[in-house]
Amino acid sequence: MKQSEQSRRTFIKTAAAGSAALALSGFMSCADGKKPPNFVLIFCDDLGYGDLGSFGHPTIRTPNLDRMAVEGQRWTQFYAAAPVCTPSRAALMTGRYPVRSGMCSDKRGVLFPDSAGGLPETEITIATALKSKSYATACVGKWHLGHLPQYLPTSHGFDSYFGIPYSNDMDKIRHMSVKDEMDPKPEYYNVPLMRNEEVIERPAKQGEITKRYTEEAVQFIQTNKDQPFFLYLAHTMPHIPLFRSKQFKGTSRRGYYGDVIEEIDWSVGEIVRTLKKEGLDENTLVVFTSDNGPWLLFDQHGGSAGPLRNGKGTTFEGGMREPTIFWWPGKIQPGVEMGIGCTMDVMPTFCVLAGADMPDDREIDGKDLSGTLFKGKESPREEMIYYRGQRVYAARKGPYKAHFMTELSYQRDNQFKLHDPPLLFNIEEDPSEKYNIAADYPKVIKEIQKMVEQHRKTLGPPSDNLVERIKEGPAVL
Amino acid sequence: MKQSEQSRRTFIKTAAAGSAALALSGFMSCADGKKPPNFVLIFCDDLGYGDLGSFGHPTIRTPNLDRMAVEGQRWTQFYAAAPVCTPSRAALMTGRYPVRSGMCSDKRGVLFPDSAGGLPETEITIATALKSKSYATACVGKWHLGHLPQYLPTSHGFDSYFGIPYSNDMDKIRHMSVKDEMDPKPEYYNVPLMRNEEVIERPAKQGEITKRYTEEAVQFIQTNKDQPFFLYLAHTMPHIPLFRSKQFKGTSRRGYYGDVIEEIDWSVGEIVRTLKKEGLDENTLVVFTSDNGPWLLFDQHGGSAGPLRNGKGTTFEGGMREPTIFWWPGKIQPGVEMGIGCTMDVMPTFCVLAGADMPDDREIDGKDLSGTLFKGKESPREEMIYYRGQRVYAARKGPYKAHFMTELSYQRDNQFKLHDPPLLFNIEEDPSEKYNIAADYPKVIKEIQKMVEQHRKTLGPPSDNLVERIKEGPAVL
Repeated sequence: MKQSEQSRRTFIKTAAAGSAALALSGFMSCADGKKPPNFVLIFCDDLGYGDLGSFGHPTIRTPNLDRMAVEGQRWTQFYAAAPVCTPSRAALMTGRYPVRSGMCSDKRGVLFPDSAGGLPETEITIATALKSKSYATACVGKWHLGHLPQYLPTSHGFDSYFGIPYSNDMDKIRHMSVKDEMDPKPEYYNVPLMRNEEVIERPAKQGEITKRYTEEAVQFIQTNKDQPFFLYLAHTMPHIPLFRSKQFKGTSRRGYYGDVIEEIDWSVGEIVRTLKKEGLDENTLVVFTSDNGPWLLFDQHGGSAGPLRNGKGTTFEGGMREPTIFWWPGKIQPGVEMGIGCTMDVMPTFCVLAGADMPDDREIDGKDLSGTLFKGKESPREEMIYYRGQRVYAARKGPYKAHFMTELSYQRDNQFKLHDPPLLFNIEEDPSEKYNIAADYPKVIKEIQKMVEQHRKTLGPPSDNLVERIKEGPAVL
Repeated sequence: MKQSEQSRRTFIKTAAAGSAALALSGFMSCADGKKPPNFVLIFCDDLGYGDLGSFGHPTIRTPNLDRMAVEGQRWTQFYAAAPVCTPSRAALMTGRYPVRSGMCSDKRGVLFPDSAGGLPETEITIATALKSKSYATACVGKWHLGHLPQYLPTSHGFDSYFGIPYSNDMDKIRHMSVKDEMDPKPEYYNVPLMRNEEVIERPAKQGEITKRYTEEAVQFIQTNKDQPFFLYLAHTMPHIPLFRSKQFKGTSRRGYYGDVIEEIDWSVGEIVRTLKKEGLDENTLVVFTSDNGPWLLFDQHGGSAGPLRNGKGTTFEGGMREPTIFWWPGKIQPGVEMGIGCTMDVMPTFCVLAGADMPDDREIDGKDLSGTLFKGKESPREEMIYYRGQRVYAARKGPYKAHFMTELSYQRDNQFKLHDPPLLFNIEEDPSEKYNIAADYPKVIKEIQKMVEQHRKTLGPPSDNLVERIKEGPAVL
């Protein structure tokens, strides 16, 4: 047994003991005697930086998120840790760059229905960590970290799972052109809907998927209101193919895509309404963000990165910077936060607030943001490494970002380029990455290169958990 | 004497009579017995759609404007009536497309120091209209509607004027390259600072120009707090060359341009603070907008149109759509307003609120927005004509915008193109004007063409007040 696997088992055992103690005492408490906070993590799929009203979209109406942005903190430089789904989610769940868990690949960008791999059992997720403090945990929505039983949410610290386990455009029943995918019907995609480890519907009736996820999430909150809980609500939308409920059909000025975002905003409103109704809002941290930027390949069915360059699949800002909101009435200092943050920071932040231990036998890339959220401190994050697959495409230190290589778009007109010297942008002065200033700042480039080298020294031997395919054929479930 | 000139004189005479009545009675009142509201119109120069925090800029901090955006209405489809300075301001002041007043030209884009023309005496401005209700009126900042005495603010209904009368990059002492203008010193630009009709400083000490305008504006409010007033605060910034006070040097993550915007935001905060301190905030409508989009020619010294296409000088959305906020605590229904609005609508809206008559002997293009501001009604504006000089480049009807001709940028790589059939965009579904849908909507194009024809029928004989130059040389003042 590897050291980290041993450690994980000990970790889970401790968690179970904590659970037993809870059962005995009937309640649990933090070090300061207060009930630990609840966590609701709302995670979208392919949402662009510019797709919310509060992040500048002129014709998408998102009043619930806009209100949370004002009452809470709106983070304008918050990143996903990868420009595509599976590695981004691995980073979110583990607080680690996906290259550490082998959840990124240069051969297959994400997991597919025929994939045999998933998030290794040795990895410790947010849910597993919070179980050590007896949190009730639920994953509702898209998982995409492996769909064999050992990789499902219920094997990774979640008490329950309800959702489509991978992308909603997979398991296509026939070849679909880009245009076909812009006029979708649920039956074109033979994706499963699962409850825990069972497929309960196939193809999943995607037409009302956002609504159903929301109902499930609301029910989980209501059922668990008397104990600390962690709800991970990972919307399948606005990933292509787009679907929205009848009530949202044609409601947005932004068209189909706008309808979908406005239904997500409605869903956020339902969660907040439930928290308030149950008297939980002042003891619940809600985080809203997404896994990567907009899928520009699909024209108006894809989102917008606003002023940022490019989108999903690229390591330009549009591919990885996400519209992010932290909300906790009475606790968070309201305002616009311009410090750097990353989805990897969610886990350490939650653990600190819950009084839960972070694993100490492995590299953790996430930072605890609680000082910034609650005490007006500067964000502890000063750097960001931009991976595409297993390769470092770019790196940011303070306001400077160096591109060592670039890919101009995702799945269309791919244009890979090596840059020597790297491109250098001051992305706070030049958020659209237009003006290469490499010639003027050779020292900055060297510092960033040194930072990347130091990062590389912390990596273990490479592994790739996305490439292996099941032997018997494409249909695993 | 022309009919409209006759009318204007009558109009002013009536206004003067009103003034006399005020002097006798010691106060004035609206039809409903309440004191008419004050108006503060804050107008920037070359501010981009995406340059405020509340309009999505990631690294420019504008807390005062953001607060007003939340407490008031944030308009996301609000237009200047021209993509450059002089015609845009003529439209704002008169409620009419600038082609009607001859304040646009195909030969000279704006007025220059050697220009002999200006806003005709026959035109009635917001200030003149409000004088009929005995408003105290002040113009602070950039005028740019003529600098010979008969064209100055004091000849157009303003009791006083303080500011640089045209663009701050004019009267250059030597040839300046684009790069030179990005490292500016006030003495490079021999622009005058005026009080009423007198030049009081030359070159104007631009380094603290935003601060000085603000002090003047605050003083005007304090001096006139007991009567209804109209303050037109037209910032010289962020037009190139950029200047900001010492206190704002290096304060913004966005660099020099960000410093300038953050000083404007500070200025807005000072205005609001003064209104509150004097107990005027609940009887004052504050409008914040700009004259045209960002001057992209100057790279990082120019602003950003956010998700919108192109900038200043073009009839793409980035050239004419402006970040606009209406604020009046307790009166305006807070929210995001996605209806179409235009700077030409300011005058009718103010007149309705003040109980002042709009001139009835001429075409007025502005619409009264008060129903939308206060009663939740849809915006009365359904269309927009996009002029560049005296030519109709584009027109919008509902969500559809047809480009009959385009110019891709302003003063660099100019690329004029005629489009037959026109380009057609649904700019609510496609705010970045990326996807030409002309082939699918021939009827819509016909409707828009018909609308433009009807508009053309309302135009008088063409005139051009920008082209004439003074005889004695370039220095008029």
